[in-house]
Amino acid sequence: MSEKIRVAVLGADGRMGTAVCEAVAGAADLELVARMGPGDDPGVLTPADADVAVDFTTPAATEANVHALLDAGLDVVVGTSGWTADAVERVRAHVEARPLAQGVLIAPNFALSAVLTMRFARQAAAYFESAEIIELHHPDKADAPSGTATATAQAMGAARAAAGLDAMPDATTTALDGARGADVAGVPVHSVRLRGLVAHQEVLLGNPGEQLTIRTDSFDRASFMPGVLLAVRRIGSRPGLTVGLEALLDL
Amino acid sequence: MSEKIRVAVLGADGRMGTAVCEAVAGAADLELVARMGPGDDPGVLTPADADVAVDFTTPAATEANVHALLDAGLDVVVGTSGWTADAVERVRAHVEARPLAQGVLIAPNFALSAVLTMRFARQAAAYFESAEIIELHHPDKADAPSGTATATAQAMGAARAAAGLDAMPDATTTALDGARGADVAGVPVHSVRLRGLVAHQEVLLGNPGEQLTIRTDSFDRASFMPGVLLAVRRIGSRPGLTVGLEALLDL
Amino acid sequence: MSEKIRVAVLGADGRMGTAVCEAVAGAADLELVARMGPGDDPGVLTPADADVAVDFTTPAATEANVHALLDAGLDVVVGTSGWTADAVERVRAHVEARPLAQGVLIAPNFALSAVLTMRFARQAAAYFESAEIIELHHPDKADAPSGTATATAQAMGAARAAAGLDAMPDATTTALDGARGADVAGVPVHSVRLRGLVAHQEVLLGNPGEQLTIRTDSFDRASFMPGVLLAVRRIGSRPGLTVGLEALLDL
Amino acid sequence: MSEKIRVAVLGADGRMGTAVCEAVAGAADLELVARMGPGDDPGVLTPADADVAVDFTTPAATEANVHALLDAGLDVVVGTSGWTADAVERVRAHVEARPLAQGVLIAPNFALSAVLTMRFARQAAAYFESAEIIELHHPDKADAPSGTATATAQAMGAARAAAGLDAMPDATTTALDGARGADVAGVPVHSVRLRGLVAHQEVLLGNPGEQLTIRTDSFDRASFMPGVLLAVRRIGSRPGLTVGLEALLDL
Repeated sequence: MSEKIRVAVLGADGRMGTAVCEAVAGAADLELVARMGPGDDPGVLTPADADVAVDFTTPAATEANVHALLDAGLDVVVGTSGWTADAVERVRAHVEARPLAQGVLIAPNFALSAVLTMRFARQAAAYFESAEIIELHHPDKADAPSGTATATAQAMGAARAAAGLDAMPDATTTALDGARGADVAGVPVHSVRLRGLVAHQEVLLGNPGEQLTIRTDSFDRASFMPGVLLAVRRIGSRPGLTVGLEALLDL
Repeated sequence: MSEKIRVAVLGADGRMGTAVCEAVAGAADLELVARMGPGDDPGVLTPADADVAVDFTTPAATEANVHALLDAGLDVVVGTSGWTADAVERVRAHVEARPLAQGVLIAPNFALSAVLTMRFARQAAAYFESAEIIELHHPDKADAPSGTATATAQAMGAARAAAGLDAMPDATTTALDGARGADVAGVPVHSVRLRGLVAHQEVLLGNPGEQLTIRTDSFDRASFMPGVLLAVRRIGSRPGLTVGLEALLDL
Repeated sequence: MSEKIRVAVLGADGRMGTAVCEAVAGAADLELVARMGPGDDPGVLTPADADVAVDFTTPAATEANVHALLDAGLDVVVGTSGWTADAVERVRAHVEARPLAQGVLIAPNFALSAVLTMRFARQAAAYFESAEIIELHHPDKADAPSGTATATAQAMGAARAAAGLDAMPDATTTALDGARGADVAGVPVHSVRLRGLVAHQEVLLGNPGEQLTIRTDSFDRASFMPGVLLAVRRIGSRPGLTVGLEALLDL
Repeated sequence: MSEKIRVAVLGADGRMGTAVCEAVAGAADLELVARMGPGDDPGVLTPADADVAVDFTTPAATEANVHALLDAGLDVVVGTSGWTADAVERVRAHVEARPLAQGVLIAPNFALSAVLTMRFARQAAAYFESAEIIELHHPDKADAPSGTATATAQAMGAARAAAGLDAMPDATTTALDGARGADVAGVPVHSVRLRGLVAHQEVLLGNPGEQLTIRTDSFDRASFMPGVLLAVRRIGSRPGLTVGLEALLDL
């Protein structure tokens, strides 16, 4: 008999947490067993109550939550941002020291289109002479380029270097300041800020006579839900620490 | 009886001139009556031979050609680049002083998609909070942004100012150099240089909840030919000097 | 002294009406003077209270509302759908018979990007050999193609016919059913239904060596608000009946 | 010392063959040792002369060429179309029976952007509710959809089936014939034919709140050359028969 996976949600009263609760409640193979808010202690959960906990809380709370959930014997899916490298390593040490084969996923982005865009861009980067990134967001965003665009450019630059590619061709001799974008690991990145948009990224790759374009559009935080549910379903069979949703995909 | 328009081509041995000769020869309502090279004197043409001359020669030769053609009594379509404002005004004075109702068109760009993109972008500019331009070219191009993108941005900036629009919303506080593009008349312009591309421009306009995109792709110099033929057909009914193909379109 | 335009909203409790009330209340030059629901009689309004009424009610109620608002002496902006040609003509007769110079706008679509896309597509249609439309919507939509795509194709087909263009080139001899889209006035229309999308339309125009693309993206009903506010501001200076927002734009 | 790979080209006087000769001659690590036309016998080649032969001849000649080249002891890269499944199997049997570790690649498409688009589309297909394909070509093309689009749709449909996905959501109840495209393995495919275009394909994938787009643009037969050179460089280390360029990429 196939039993439902029992899911606890931490940060259940936040915008993301509310959406996760709805998505879990709406999935036939999942059961929402706990909605926990800021005052609730995740340490009260046990494997008798829940299989997986999803944390969409705050940067200040998330690390302590994860350690408490590991001690409680649960698998954990973390979508909260603000993790330092040190904090990640503390979780790795903890989960590897646990007697049970528990799994923890820490992921900065659960939108499948964004995760796949980064992967495909990194894989394709070695096969094209030229590559640039255009990221487009709403005009209330404070940073440019976006974190996702920066990470994508760094991964592409590393892939180009590993493949021994030359610098990209660029005969520009006269340019206005800023016209050719920001240089991130040798990949030009252009940031558009336009009223009406949400979060979008386009990766352009060019060879003689051809172009490959990979684009992700995120219109709504609903875009995280298929990735969160996939993580909830798969983290139980991936013991240890996993960083990034990509590793849970069969690619 | 509808007679064919008789066309002389100056610069007939150049890349553009060759393509114009082929396009004229292939049009049922046009007749190619002269292919003139660098050593040929346009002053030998008369209204008994030709109705319209098309000049795709060189910046050094084009102004003298136009004056000679006016003296010869022909209408003139000019696609050669490098015209200064003074040279344009000398042609205006000349054509207005002619006893015949002759027409001269001087146009920097005959690609209909590019001409219409500039027009539509200028018209739409007053109706959107945000506007940015992305231009994309082959990596052998020396200047960034392209002349077309700069002209488009200036026209859009002027339209926004005339409509009394505020500066565009942009909450960027932390940015890498160049990420937000070049500022041309208040419109951010981003220049992509990618192997495989030819000449492309995308105008993005945004309001709450909506986006308008106008894009021109030029893959080949063939893109100039429909505009050149249109100019050849219409310049006879537009006496005086016309600058830019747009004025010959019924819009 | 510049006084605020006083605005009454009918259907103020509906989704569109609520958004209109917020947009009017947030505009410095407008004043929201009445929110009217299904039980409220628009006949109680007078020019002493309001300048313009905006109707986003129901197909069953809107015609009676407009006649009552005309009798009350107001200008009217109508966004409710379901108007028959006969009902439109009854409003035209009524407004033209009024002693005051009142204006009525009936518009099927207030999204500026959609209105401009239709206009630009119609204008460009005469200048390109090939033209096709791709419209993309959420998968809960019942009809294909969309009403906007059908109207755009009809306008483009009429423009091509008026310009004497030949049928589009198409050498297809072997095709799967449906591959080449639906034929609307000679223009192929392709309907995509994709989870995650809202309402999008792309008009593609092609000539030798070049392409022009005009695209509208509507992400949210907020996209109607700039057009509604523009109509509220301009209908007072456009007496009589106007059908379609385009006529209120300075193009 | 790193020696150059010596390359013979069959069909060297054809359009593709001419381009391959130029590309090989222009690559620092390759040496063009033979240009063979229709009257030339590939059986005269030996491992003393050449390492790899590239065949861009005709459907009538290609199979015999490959067998002759295998007997001659060379590796073979085949870009000629028209291979039946039986002909492919005869090559497989032959190459596996050879005493040397020779390699043969038969590939329908060498454009890296097209090959990667097919791979990424197949990989992503399992992770999205909705998927559709738009392919766009010049209007002289006889078949719709294109072979690449059909192959992509079949691969995506198979990936969806293997992942146990439901049919795509589609509430269409009223549609014009053709509006919703052709059904290929459950994936709607739309074929645009537009003057000015060459060969383009866009794969659209949608989930709640997000979209992933993968697009390949082929502007020119130059787009095949990076893939041909990559195959020439790698076929020597991949003994046996390989079908499709994808298998030679490190992905």
